Order: sequence, then structure tokens, then C-alpha cells
Amino acid sequence: MTTFNKVTAAHIAALREIAGVAYVLADEENRDRYARDETEDLHYMPEVVVKPDTTEQVSQIMQLCNRELLPVTPRGGGTGLSGGALPQYGGVLISMERFNRIIQIDERNLQVTTEPGVITEVLQMAVKEKGLFYPPDPSSRGTCFIGGNIAENSGGPKAVKYGVVKDYVLNLEMVLPTGEVIWTGANVLKNATGYNLTQLVVGSEGTLGIVTKIVLRLIPAPKHDLLMLVPFRSAESACAAVSAIFRAGYVPSAMEFMERDALEWVSQYVQGSTVTIADDIQAHLLIETDGNYPEVLMQEMEGIAGVVEGFDVGEILFAESHQQKEELWKLRRRVAEAVKANSVYKEEDTVVPRAELPLLLKGVKEIGRKYGFHSVCYGHAGDGNLHVNIIRGSLTEDQWNGTLQEGIREIFRLVKQLGGTISGEHGIGLVQKNYMDIIFDETSMRLMKQIKQIFDPNHILNRGKIFDN
Amino acid sequence: MTTFNKVTAAHIAALREIAGVAYVLADEENRDRYARDETEDLHYMPEVVVKPDTTEQVSQIMQLCNRELLPVTPRGGGTGLSGGALPQYGGVLISMERFNRIIQIDERNLQVTTEPGVITEVLQMAVKEKGLFYPPDPSSRGTCFIGGNIAENSGGPKAVKYGVVKDYVLNLEMVLPTGEVIWTGANVLKNATGYNLTQLVVGSEGTLGIVTKIVLRLIPAPKHDLLMLVPFRSAESACAAVSAIFRAGYVPSAMEFMERDALEWVSQYVQGSTVTIADDIQAHLLIETDGNYPEVLMQEMEGIAGVVEGFDVGEILFAESHQQKEELWKLRRRVAEAVKANSVYKEEDTVVPRAELPLLLKGVKEIGRKYGFHSVCYGHAGDGNLHVNIIRGSLTEDQWNGTLQEGIREIFRLVKQLGGTISGEHGIGLVQKNYMDIIFDETSMRLMKQIKQIFDPNHILNRGKIFDN
Repeated sequence: MTTFNKVTAAHIAALREIAGVAYVLADEENRDRYARDETEDLHYMPEVVVKPDTTEQVSQIMQLCNRELLPVTPRGGGTGLSGGALPQYGGVLISMERFNRIIQIDERNLQVTTEPGVITEVLQMAVKEKGLFYPPDPSSRGTCFIGGNIAENSGGPKAVKYGVVKDYVLNLEMVLPTGEVIWTGANVLKNATGYNLTQLVVGSEGTLGIVTKIVLRLIPAPKHDLLMLVPFRSAESACAAVSAIFRAGYVPSAMEFMERDALEWVSQYVQGSTVTIADDIQAHLLIETDGNYPEVLMQEMEGIAGVVEGFDVGEILFAESHQQKEELWKLRRRVAEAVKANSVYKEEDTVVPRAELPLLLKGVKEIGRKYGFHSVCYGHAGDGNLHVNIIRGSLTEDQWNGTLQEGIREIFRLVKQLGGTISGEHGIGLVQKNYMDIIFDETSMRLMKQIKQIFDPNHILNRGKIFDN
Repeated sequence: MTTFNKVTAAHIAALREIAGVAYVLADEENRDRYARDETEDLHYMPEVVVKPDTTEQVSQIMQLCNRELLPVTPRGGGTGLSGGALPQYGGVLISMERFNRIIQIDERNLQVTTEPGVITEVLQMAVKEKGLFYPPDPSSRGTCFIGGNIAENSGGPKAVKYGVVKDYVLNLEMVLPTGEVIWTGANVLKNATGYNLTQLVVGSEGTLGIVTKIVLRLIPAPKHDLLMLVPFRSAESACAAVSAIFRAGYVPSAMEFMERDALEWVSQYVQGSTVTIADDIQAHLLIETDGNYPEVLMQEMEGIAGVVEGFDVGEILFAESHQQKEELWKLRRRVAEAVKANSVYKEEDTVVPRAELPLLLKGVKEIGRKYGFHSVCYGHAGDGNLHVNIIRGSLTEDQWNGTLQEGIREIFRLVKQLGGTISGEHGIGLVQKNYMDIIFDETSMRLMKQIKQIFDPNHILNRGKIFDN
């Protein structure tokens, strides 16, 4: 195993030679800005921050670090929830913020070529102006980078109908830890030419290389959507309703689950919220349909309403206006923030086959009772992706950093038993890597570690993420 | 590089011990049945054929062959078009034909767990009975195996709306060349848990392991479809119409291109065909829409007809009945057979971004004139996937096996220049591996070969496919 060197003044001078003096930050205040992401309260200080502007610069930085055995951590928008962009070993942090150009929107081929530092929402809006649609839509879309979305294989509410990031990535330009630059595939919708390096890189959490250009497929934008908020008197019934809707033949464009606490906390957190929750309501589903034909959407919404009415629901709220839709979506998007503002918490990104959601929710609550923690659950129920927020509340330090780990293991063992896995869209990063043994046996772990070794012989790139290496 | 041993009587006895006497075939007549696939006129004789029945047996066979350094070739339905299932080095051919059980259709989660030796159409029909839909649909669906489809990342006509095999595979049980058995992922719709081994295996042409169980996602079956055949007076205009349809916001469920020769030859080949082609017609598009609302489909078909009418078309044929739809689809599916019956040929599985199809077609014809070959082109135009069938005609042996290679290189260089690649859905196998350098640089090739090495340290499994190793 490589032992890293410390960053010296000579290294900093070399980095300044490569990226320009203004883009190499070595003072404490600036470095501290890159020492956190959105994961719990973790803090790791880089020794130096570099902001390259071209693929060639990234390649030169990598060659330097590979030669000098300096740890490298790539960083996008810093919105990660598993600590993937945190410089655990110090060293060189490469911020991709200057890679912020949308290179080409190809309306003839329904593709966009972009740099990785473009904010996801900026990309979405740019293609929407051309009548096109890039569906992956993490809650952090206003600040996260498209490159980070690729690193974590992000999802978001639209994944239930449109798929996740991996379903839109056609081709990637990537700098390897050796400094070599490759394209992973071709700009085509189908490809049976060698191993799928593109899909190997998507979701690899910045451990195999630094992506410098991205080719995404786009689809025609649906022209209309409808939204409704369905209150349930039991959280498990809300989960059960989810698979019933699919079994009835409907494919909504979003189907979001929120436990009572989640919606209550966020409606207090977001100013001017008009949503009220009746006393006997335990959970909500936020259900959207989209398409080009308003009458079809209305018919589908009525059909879905018919299905959910079999599950002991309260009064369904149909969003009447664009403004009301916006409000409901704003509430959903800001749940994580509201939970964070309310208490210290740990978020588990569980995912199971969707019909197993009621068993998962029931199990999480039972495990919570056993270990003495309260949880607030919400997430992308249509995909079986439940974010379990474990609230610190009155847990002692020993409980929080000690016995709780066993509780989390129990949740993940349940997830595995239900056919699921421990991360749907947040990644493993630093915080979940000790649980990987629940999902993968030694052989699979060995294969992954050997793949890492091929791409990064000196283990300089984002070491300690996904697994120890 | 491993030097293989020959299969001995002792090996055959050991194989009989593992799989049962009846399932180990060593006589010439039986071995000869496994010496061909649908690729040109290639013939490679295995030394012995084994038909295991369980994952455990496959694992034991692999352990034996790995220890004894015997080459292993896995085989599905034998319908491959790139020679992927041919035992180039002789050795042990593992036929997966007895892995023919659909293990579970999970209607609650819209998933199916199946063995790899199930015929694709059998699987499609079984899930259709439950109102579910597995869209990947190769022309060979009546005889190919689902496992082979995974090896080659197959597509077919529905890919334009529904994606290819990789978009449906959730999880795979696989026996490594060492005999170790892994599951590659989890049975979930989204997954950010470690490297995507599932997607690495899909399309790896049986070089990384032998898949023994497959979990596929399904979708609700669309209830209706409409089909029309549009004749064009210029083949390039037909190609140009393809991207115009998408740019107008339509996403057909199939959009197939056939040059005049293709449709003419197949209508002569298939008995009782009623399709007639006017003298001035150079190409056809077969366009399907599907969905749950007949009135919407009709509206979309009329919209699409409106778009294509801008491209100098003949009289559009709307399929009036189920029978007429079946006939048109039968013609399309049997084009490859009809071409094969007509002449010796080589098929190139080119794919480009769809708006570049007219340039590809024009370039193929120019290259044909330069090298003196006639080509018949057809394919999945909605995906930019054009099958270029190079007809032997009166080419001499020297031309056919000599200078033609340079012509094919020119076609593939054009494909690359247009943003495409050399195989969309047939794979590289034996016949395209000498062209891989056109698409991948040395670094990418090195990565792929090293990945192969990780999974298969002794290079016993399907060696010589995709690249020399």
C-alpha cells in the first residue's frame, strides 16, 4: 500500500505552474471552504486546493501527484451525502468548479456535451429551452454539479419513470490517475463494443478517474404534468399503495413518500407553506404524472386516485396551479434540510424492490425501538428508495457513535434480505464503507479492489472511499 | 500467456462425474452441432460438449478447466452474429440449454428471475400473460437465449423507445473462471453501492464469467400499437426523416429502416407476402407507436405521417389488422435470413448518432463503389443502428478476404468520425476484434485486457473474443 507524501512548497509551485497562481489555494481560510460537504458533520482539511480549467491541466496535476505520491480528491458542488468529496488524507483537492461550460446542445441528435462543473439545474434549464429534457433531478439540483451526479449515479424523483443518471450517460472523457486521458465509449444509444467502461465509471465515486467531459442523451420534454398529495392514515399503507399503483398499470413520473414528521417539519421550516396535516395522518405520497396529452394525464390521475382510495386515505389535494405545484415540490426538495435543521442525524439511503417497502418501514421502526432511536423516513417510493433519517435526539455520545452502528447494520441486513442494497443514490463514500460486507462477498469485493488497482496503481485518487484500499 | 492443454479421456470422465454421462458429448457428430453459429460460414470444433444443469455444476466444470488449463466456451442459442460462441481453441464447450427455467415472475415488483437458457420469446410470452412487458426483442427471439442477449447487450426494434438489454438487467448470478460464484448487484431499480459489476458483465460476450441466474426488471405492457410502412424515393431521405420525427417530439416504439433490396429480397423469400414496392422507391421506414390510449396513438401516427410527408414519400401503408402487422414484422425480422439466402455476405453492425445516418449511408455506398462491393442496408434507424450487409456477389477470394478488410476499416473509420462505434448490438466476438483499434486507444484497450485478467487469471474463458488475450 502506498504511503502518501506531504504537499510541499515545491509541489505548490508546480501546481501554480500548471493551473495558474490564482487557482491554487494554500491558505487556511480557503482550504477550509473545501473541507466539508453535506454529510453529517464531517471535516477533513485539504493541504492545497487546485482549480484547473482544462483536461490537459487535470492530466498534468494527476501526473505530478502520481509521481510524488500525493493523495488527490476530486470535488464537484460539495453537496454529497456520503463524504465522497472529502479529502480524508489531506493532499491535493481538485475542485472542478471552473469546468462549467455546456459545450454543445445537439438538437439533431438529442444529446448534450457538457463539462462536469455545470450545475445540474443550469443544464436542465438550458436543454429545456430547446424543448428537451434531462430527467435526473436530485434535491440538490440548484447547487450540485453534473459531474458529482455521475460520480454517485444520482436519481431523484423522476427516476421512477425516466431512470437514473446511468441511463443518460453515453460517453465520458476521463483523466486517469496516471494522467492518461480516455473516452469511455461512443455517442450512441446502443453499444456492444468491448466492456462498458462508461457504466463502470458512473457511480464509481471519483475513485477511477476524473471526468472532464460528459455526453448525455436527452429526450423530448413532456408538455404537461399533474400533481397530487395523498394523505394516509398509516405509513405502511402508503408504502403498500405504491406497488398497487404499478400493478394497476400506471407509471407515474414521480411517487414520493414522506412520513408525517418529514412533511410537518418541512412545512414549519419553509416560510409561507400553506399545507396542513390532519391529526390522524401518518404519511403522504406526492404523485405526479406527465405527458403530452392533458386528458390522458387527468384520466391516469383519476385511475391512480381510484387505486389509493383503497388504502384508508384522507382528503387528496390536487395541485390546481403552477404555484401550488411549485410549493409542493419545494416542500419535498427541502425535507432533508428541514430534518438537518431540526436535529443532528445520520441518513441511510436504503433501497429495496418497491413492494417490500412496507416491510422495510416496519423493520426500521422496530429496530429503532430496539436501539432507542427515532427515525424520519421519506424518499423515492416508486423506486423503493427510502431515506431513513436517524435522529440523534437524546442519544448519548456512546449510543450515537457506538451501539447505533449495530442498529444500522440491522437495518442494512434487513435491506439485503428484502433483495435491496445499502445505497440507492447517495453512494458509499466514507460513511457506508464499513457496511459493504453486508452486500458483497469477498470475491466481489476483491474484484472491485482489483479494478481500482488497474485504474489507479498507486491508489492516489480518492482513496478510502467505497472501501479501504 | 497460458498454453492450453488438450482434453483427455480423464477430463471427459471428470466432466461426466460432474454433469452426468448423458450430458457430456464427445462424439464427432454431436460436437459438430456446436461448431457453428449464425456468423458467416465460420466453423470451430469443440473437443467436448457439456450441458450442465446447476450453478454448482458450472462451478465445478470451471474449477476443473482452470486447474487443467482447458479452454472453455459458453454457448446460448447459437444465434450470434460475431462468433462469440465459437470454440476457437477447441476445448470444453458449455451449452447452457438446460438452464431453461423461468424461476419466478414477481408481479408485485415487476421483476422476473430466470435462468439464461430460456428462449427470449418464451420469456416475453410468459411475462406478457401477466400483463407485463420485457421489451428487448432481437430478430432471433424465437431461438436465441436470454443469456446470449445479455452477453451481447442485444437490442432489437423496441430499443428506440424502451432501451436495450442493459436497461433491464438488475442483478446476475455468475460463475467466474475460477469457479467462484458471485451476485453482481441487487434486485433494485437504483443502486449506488460500489462499482457496477452488473453493467460490466452485460455485453462482455461471455469473457468474464458464465451467467447462471438473471433478474430483469419488467414494465406494464402497453395495450395498443399502430404500425405503418413508409416508402421513400431516396434512401438518404428516409434516414433524414428519422431524426426529424424525434425533433418533432415523437418517440415511436419502433423505427426500422430497410433499403429497397432488403424489402424486395425478403418479400420474395417469405411465402405469401403481399407487399409490393413501386419502381421509384429506394427505401422504407417501418414505424410503430404504442401505448394505452388508441386515440393518442392515432394522433401521434398522424403527426409522424405529417413529418415524413416532407421527405418525398410514396403511398404510406397503414397496417389495418393484426394479421397485416404480423406480416410486416415477419418481413422485417427475416431480412437477415433472406440476405443470407441470397448471397454470401459479411454483416457490419454500425451505429452512429441518429441524425448522422444519411452521412453514414452515403459514405457506405461511396466506399462500396471504391472497393467494388454491393451492400444491402437495414436496421434500427431510430437508434442510429445500421446493419450493413456486404454482398459477396462476384468478388474474388482475394478481394473478399483481402482488400475488403480495408473497405470495412474505411466504413468503421467513418462511423467513428460520426461519433459512432463498430457494434450496436451484435458484439465484437471473433469477427470484429481486429477493428477495435479504430474505436479505442491503447489505454482503453489496456484497461479492458486488465479487467479480463482480474476475472480470468488463466485466460481460459472464451479467449480470443473481443480482443486477443
